[in-house]
Amino acid sequence: MVTGSKEKNLQNASDMITRASGGSQIIILPEMFNTPYRAKSFNDFSETYPGKTTEMLSNLARKLNVYIIGGSIPEKEGKKIFNTSFSFNNKGTLIGKHRKIHLFDVDIEGKIKFNESDYISSGNKTTILDTEYCKIGIAICYDMRFPELARKMVLEGAQIIIVPGAFNMTTGPAHWHILARTRAVDNQVFFITASPARDTKADYIAYGHSLICDPWGEIIAESDEKENILYGRLDLDLVSRIRKQMPLLLHRREEIYRL
Amino acid sequence: MVTGSKEKNLQNASDMITRASGGSQIIILPEMFNTPYRAKSFNDFSETYPGKTTEMLSNLARKLNVYIIGGSIPEKEGKKIFNTSFSFNNKGTLIGKHRKIHLFDVDIEGKIKFNESDYISSGNKTTILDTEYCKIGIAICYDMRFPELARKMVLEGAQIIIVPGAFNMTTGPAHWHILARTRAVDNQVFFITASPARDTKADYIAYGHSLICDPWGEIIAESDEKENILYGRLDLDLVSRIRKQMPLLLHRREEIYRL
Repeated sequence: MVTGSKEKNLQNASDMITRASGGSQIIILPEMFNTPYRAKSFNDFSETYPGKTTEMLSNLARKLNVYIIGGSIPEKEGKKIFNTSFSFNNKGTLIGKHRKIHLFDVDIEGKIKFNESDYISSGNKTTILDTEYCKIGIAICYDMRFPELARKMVLEGAQIIIVPGAFNMTTGPAHWHILARTRAVDNQVFFITASPARDTKADYIAYGHSLICDPWGEIIAESDEKENILYGRLDLDLVSRIRKQMPLLLHRREEIYRL
Repeated sequence: MVTGSKEKNLQNASDMITRASGGSQIIILPEMFNTPYRAKSFNDFSETYPGKTTEMLSNLARKLNVYIIGGSIPEKEGKKIFNTSFSFNNKGTLIGKHRKIHLFDVDIEGKIKFNESDYISSGNKTTILDTEYCKIGIAICYDMRFPELARKMVLEGAQIIIVPGAFNMTTGPAHWHILARTRAVDNQVFFITASPARDTKADYIAYGHSLICDPWGEIIAESDEKENILYGRLDLDLVSRIRKQMPLLLHRREEIYRL
């Protein structure tokens, strides 16, 4: 559960990473895990790279011999703040940095209003991690609403897409599951989301329900709204098997899609 | 229910269109409604345009003062056969002809095997109907698995996407609902599918479950697997309202999606 204390958030992340590390190869944290998701905190909790949070992640990755997809944190660069996911391999080396591309600027009457771009600057590129297992695409939350982005990552070789994200109590129940499952089905990849736990007293109430979807769109593991560790075993052979059975990526008609 | 008799299939379509026409503005038929979905029938049941089936649809549209989206039929042109959807306005004028772009060539071990391209040639363009209500995009069945196609139709102005389609007993339960709902959510359009009724004695057993999804991804009407008429009222204001509340189409970052 993300709190108003950065110390506590980092300690909690460290404890949970350590607990999760036995037998795990890749550990994923949720979006904005070191800060409450609210305008007034982003600057206070932000860090330049390398900083306290990323050093902690790097050290843990090396010490525990695991890959860590570091959810996201507010990253400061000059006067700008980005919503950034830092990923480390099991040697503690930074292997990717994804700055959220699509910012959450929505106003759903009487339900949820947020204008992330008032506080956060947007990233300008896709992020693919090269790992010893396969290529992994990284996106953050609202990024997952854009099918073009998932498609691009897959055409660049991703067999897993990982999305730290915090949908809310309006968009979560409505869209979280079907978006994750359909991106998995369309692209024939494992699609994994990692949400902060739900804190009903927070300014922004996260939906929770971290998911692991397989390339056939089945949810093979799902969290509830509480703080917990979700485990899953990914059979990467399933990616090639399903791509062979139903060759969607080969059946694309790129020449027709152009405007 | 599609039978092995073209006469019966046309009579049934005519009867059901007539029944549905009271108070309806747009009537949609399912994929391959004049022929069984099987290799050996496509040629025998095929027609050049104009032909018996399309004349019937045109006449009914004019007589009943309704738009008819004519599901699809095997269309013959020279030596080729296409899986084609003919659409008529309420004057009986042809306003669009969509030839299925993506052909169903799949082989899911022990479940479903079909190689549509052995019998059917593929279309080469998207189809948008200009109607008095709004622009409507047309796709057929397997076309709906390609997010690029729906997106293109929406960027060309579609507020409704209509998909005559016949998923089967493997792909239907797995993917039919989430694909329709996610295309609706991603593109903020009404997304409508029309399936033949399920005939468990047929070579290819259709899943059924015609759907009307609203632009928020909610299913506002759903058929079961039996032969019936599904009615729905589309509030087109919802398209603009949702596009204003969550401006996904404006938030696209086209420059980043290019490979």
